[in-house]
Amino acid sequence: VTGARSAVAVLGAGSWGTALAAHLGRQGRGVRLWGRDPVLMKEIDQTRESARYLPGISLPPEVRATSEGVDALSGAAIVIVAVPSQFLEAVVRGLKETVPPGAVLVSATKGLDPVQGRRLSQLLSDLFPRHPIAALSGPSFAREVAMGQPTALVIATPDHERARQLQQCLSGPRFRLYTNRDLIGVEIAGALKNVVAIATGLADGLGLGENARAALITRGLAEIARLGVALGARPPTFVGLAGVGDLVLTCTGSLSRNRALGREIARGRALEAVEQDTRMIAEGVRTVSSAIALARRTGVAMPICEQVGAVLFNSKPVRDALQSLLARDPRPEEDEPRER
Amino acid sequence: VTGARSAVAVLGAGSWGTALAAHLGRQGRGVRLWGRDPVLMKEIDQTRESARYLPGISLPPEVRATSEGVDALSGAAIVIVAVPSQFLEAVVRGLKETVPPGAVLVSATKGLDPVQGRRLSQLLSDLFPRHPIAALSGPSFAREVAMGQPTALVIATPDHERARQLQQCLSGPRFRLYTNRDLIGVEIAGALKNVVAIATGLADGLGLGENARAALITRGLAEIARLGVALGARPPTFVGLAGVGDLVLTCTGSLSRNRALGREIARGRALEAVEQDTRMIAEGVRTVSSAIALARRTGVAMPICEQVGAVLFNSKPVRDALQSLLARDPRPEEDEPRER
Repeated sequence: VTGARSAVAVLGAGSWGTALAAHLGRQGRGVRLWGRDPVLMKEIDQTRESARYLPGISLPPEVRATSEGVDALSGAAIVIVAVPSQFLEAVVRGLKETVPPGAVLVSATKGLDPVQGRRLSQLLSDLFPRHPIAALSGPSFAREVAMGQPTALVIATPDHERARQLQQCLSGPRFRLYTNRDLIGVEIAGALKNVVAIATGLADGLGLGENARAALITRGLAEIARLGVALGARPPTFVGLAGVGDLVLTCTGSLSRNRALGREIARGRALEAVEQDTRMIAEGVRTVSSAIALARRTGVAMPICEQVGAVLFNSKPVRDALQSLLARDPRPEEDEPRER
Repeated sequence: VTGARSAVAVLGAGSWGTALAAHLGRQGRGVRLWGRDPVLMKEIDQTRESARYLPGISLPPEVRATSEGVDALSGAAIVIVAVPSQFLEAVVRGLKETVPPGAVLVSATKGLDPVQGRRLSQLLSDLFPRHPIAALSGPSFAREVAMGQPTALVIATPDHERARQLQQCLSGPRFRLYTNRDLIGVEIAGALKNVVAIATGLADGLGLGENARAALITRGLAEIARLGVALGARPPTFVGLAGVGDLVLTCTGSLSRNRALGREIARGRALEAVEQDTRMIAEGVRTVSSAIALARRTGVAMPICEQVGAVLFNSKPVRDALQSLLARDPRPEEDEPRER
């Protein structure tokens, strides 16, 4: 990560990748935004706008959009990976030879490896064992970042000096980055909050009210932290920006896809239909199964994940699923849940 | 707290006291709802509705409304205090002689003693040194409780057996109580979240967006927990229902008075005018000064409280106040803030 002028490649031209490119371009940094589809990328490069993912946001001249890996990656000192988790491994494998030696890889995707349940930095580490890896996470609707609205995020990597360099390179006056050494906690929090957001969407869809939603968010935070700590995370991470901050945004925010998906499903729509309609990927749907597998492997109780999984994949009625979450036996708040 | 049939008195006939009375009445419990104004209380008792605070909610026959202390309190085993903090001491002093010996006092008000900054259970303890004291807190819009929507709360008192009794007496199928021994943490979290809600209302009023709001909520939680721990609270309380749960509800919920007040002030209205208009009391306005005093006494940095105080009472422009909150120097997330 040498020098303030070093180029950045952003892999993934969905709303988040495009928003990050817009932000970095506005900081005067040369940015190459890479996406798979040559037609779409050419259109973005020519119109200076992603009509599909961020309509109305004009990209600064510093951003070049391309579907050619070599164009995107040559000379890049920082490679931001913002590809949906289900495609991430295939995309990155395909570009592997073009990533410059020494480039830092920054995972900006919130999810888990759909096959093995690895954190995405683990997946990247396995593919790029010699490269430094970090994660960017925290409460950030892409559209607000693209519009330059104030946002505070976390840049996580165990190497504090590396984190500080990335902080300097990627920050802006309205895009503030805080360093955090707890890569495990930051990634687990970022992935799992999407599942809790689906749960709150289900509750919203049934009209259960804001008290119930707040209770679900609280239980969700506890559930995420339990899993994280079992995997080696530090508890304070879960009360930070990547934990509470992002959970709150995703579970209450008007732009949350995962929450919107839960709401539609509670209204009786089929998962496939909702996903086709929105053309956006609700990461929580992919994360549920991996999270349940992680929960079983670590012996951690994750009732919210289990119930969301049962609704999405086993046709469990939404009302029954929420009933079993909201009507568990009251007990001392500090206790761990007894049952699975 | 003897027997499932023992009578409950609720002092304070605002929206929260009335909602609690409605809930308890629906559990088949004899409830006396006390309010200061004889005309209003007679109207509630006759029409079976509080047209002013909970229009459209019909009170069950088990609820009797009265402005006579003796009527309300004689034979009451549990006395729930739901009077706004600024009037609480005067009201309770006035009824002191009529509270039956041995009755448990439950503070359901979220605020601090406006004169000495005591927690409200401390204030009640000082007035009733021989009575057991508890606090009821957590995410709960009154209207939703009155409508019977699912709600999860905390009943806090250091005496666990007492907490369990109260849990049994006050719970219902859609009003779930979790016990917590950490009375200090529960009360500090309940009081301070209103100040953070004003701050998020200010941010909303300026149109800063949901990313900024989520960052403020996260910083607010850290600030509240720092103060609480300095006063003897247990850290886990702040990630529970009375902490994160209530903070999220108050900072994002559509029915939050404190948030609404912040929003109006950010739009240029005067504090007095907003308070007169709504006829509801935004506890956060009363809490700010006490919180700043507590912060100074304990040496805890509370930048959000300080800035909200500066806006409300020193005419600091909202934009400047939020700027100084959102543009503090980025640093490792786990650090305590350096400056006051």
